[in-house]
Amino acid sequence: MNGSSLAIDISRVRGAAQEPQQDLVAVEEPLELQLNSPTAEGCAAKSISVTMRTPGDDAELALGFLFTEGIITHADDVRTVSAVGPAAGDHERQNTVRVELRPDVPVDLERLKRHFYTTSSCGVCGKTSLDAIRITGQASLRDRQTSFDRNVIVAMPDKLRTRQRIFSATGGLHAAAAFTPEGEIVALKEDVGRHNALDKVIGWLLKEKRIPGGGLGLLVSGRASFELMQKALVAGIPLLAAVGAPSSLAVQLAQEFDMTLIGFLREGNFNIYTGAQRVH
Amino acid sequence: MNGSSLAIDISRVRGAAQEPQQDLVAVEEPLELQLNSPTAEGCAAKSISVTMRTPGDDAELALGFLFTEGIITHADDVRTVSAVGPAAGDHERQNTVRVELRPDVPVDLERLKRHFYTTSSCGVCGKTSLDAIRITGQASLRDRQTSFDRNVIVAMPDKLRTRQRIFSATGGLHAAAAFTPEGEIVALKEDVGRHNALDKVIGWLLKEKRIPGGGLGLLVSGRASFELMQKALVAGIPLLAAVGAPSSLAVQLAQEFDMTLIGFLREGNFNIYTGAQRVH
Repeated sequence: MNGSSLAIDISRVRGAAQEPQQDLVAVEEPLELQLNSPTAEGCAAKSISVTMRTPGDDAELALGFLFTEGIITHADDVRTVSAVGPAAGDHERQNTVRVELRPDVPVDLERLKRHFYTTSSCGVCGKTSLDAIRITGQASLRDRQTSFDRNVIVAMPDKLRTRQRIFSATGGLHAAAAFTPEGEIVALKEDVGRHNALDKVIGWLLKEKRIPGGGLGLLVSGRASFELMQKALVAGIPLLAAVGAPSSLAVQLAQEFDMTLIGFLREGNFNIYTGAQRVH
Repeated sequence: MNGSSLAIDISRVRGAAQEPQQDLVAVEEPLELQLNSPTAEGCAAKSISVTMRTPGDDAELALGFLFTEGIITHADDVRTVSAVGPAAGDHERQNTVRVELRPDVPVDLERLKRHFYTTSSCGVCGKTSLDAIRITGQASLRDRQTSFDRNVIVAMPDKLRTRQRIFSATGGLHAAAAFTPEGEIVALKEDVGRHNALDKVIGWLLKEKRIPGGGLGLLVSGRASFELMQKALVAGIPLLAAVGAPSSLAVQLAQEFDMTLIGFLREGNFNIYTGAQRVH
């Protein structure tokens, strides 16, 4: 047990038989993100979001979230990332991350407030449509000409699964990974929330100065939604491959910004929904 | 094509072969929820959330969201639900739902603002922990003694899949259903977002005056998160069965409020994480 899974006493029902057993479940706990910006009133730390996440890589999650939401634009915008607050839960972990920005980084907390005000439980984080993406000034990724061999692509799900530590134990976690055209996984993160898993990967890449990630591809264990494509776009990563199905808006975003979207990547096969020129 | 799926030209890669083909993807579009409350400033409609959803049952989605978020407590709190705004997208559909509350229903929009202010991209909708659930005054479901035969339970996933229209075509949708102890599905809804699918079911039950749903169970096609258990709790439905894995916090919430949580319901077997007394 590393804090990402928890043992639970269950009843296992197999046909007419029912017996007590222990099972491991993926840990889900709230993480509060606080922003400590000199432009905030009196420099106080301000709570800007609460997300349910699987503990681990909390700093990367915070960085990836702030970056893909457009609140920071470089790793250098951040001075410190620290776990704060009382230890909580079965593993005495801290469930608050405080991010201190550099004094010269402008943060309009009123804008942020309006932003979250229109946020629902999942998805666009206040962006109502593709129009909102255009407003943020994202450019097409047409000139990111990285190309991926189809044999590399079909091999990725097995590599992902082999390295998914917590999923193997609990069956309950999404994974996201960044990989090279040679098929090397450079980052792999797991979470109960698929957007969190991708934020952790992007936050890690940001720390490692590998953003924009024009030479990388992304792999996600579930479906490809608008939100995941939007995060890939902000990170400058031109290819996203999903084990599951894509949504209509994910396809439309990929078309609009000249990205490559692959779906149903399983059992040696896949579908290319747009951007086939990056697959050879 | 009914507006819930969209035909896309794709490249299908099978081993070394690659050929053009048409594929159906699940539609994902933003839905804006506006609240028209006499207690709001000047009676104006106020945008309170934007969620990415699959079009269809938008009124039920709005009702279920408002109810499970605690903004309304009865179907009677709502005077009208109407689609407004310009038609958009490939199917000329409207992506705004306006809910008009009865004049005597108190809505504290400041509270709502704070609520959404702390909301992240997915999960708790501003509730930071189990403590927040207690604050809303939710009572234990201990006295909801409805019992389900294990043979009824193991038969539910096939019934769900058989009736999932859009998933069959696109492979890209979550489903949620409410069912009786006799195994009858009384409501089944699909969406790209699993919380939306459950909100649509609960919104429908609310309209049909079947809330609190002490005599029902819920079935969800994916994993059981804290958020889904919380919605079941607010709806007064004592049993939730998931085809996938539960999270730690889903189990803890179910324990705390004397609910029954079933996971890995597949191939005739399942695990009972808590509340085994409701299964015979």
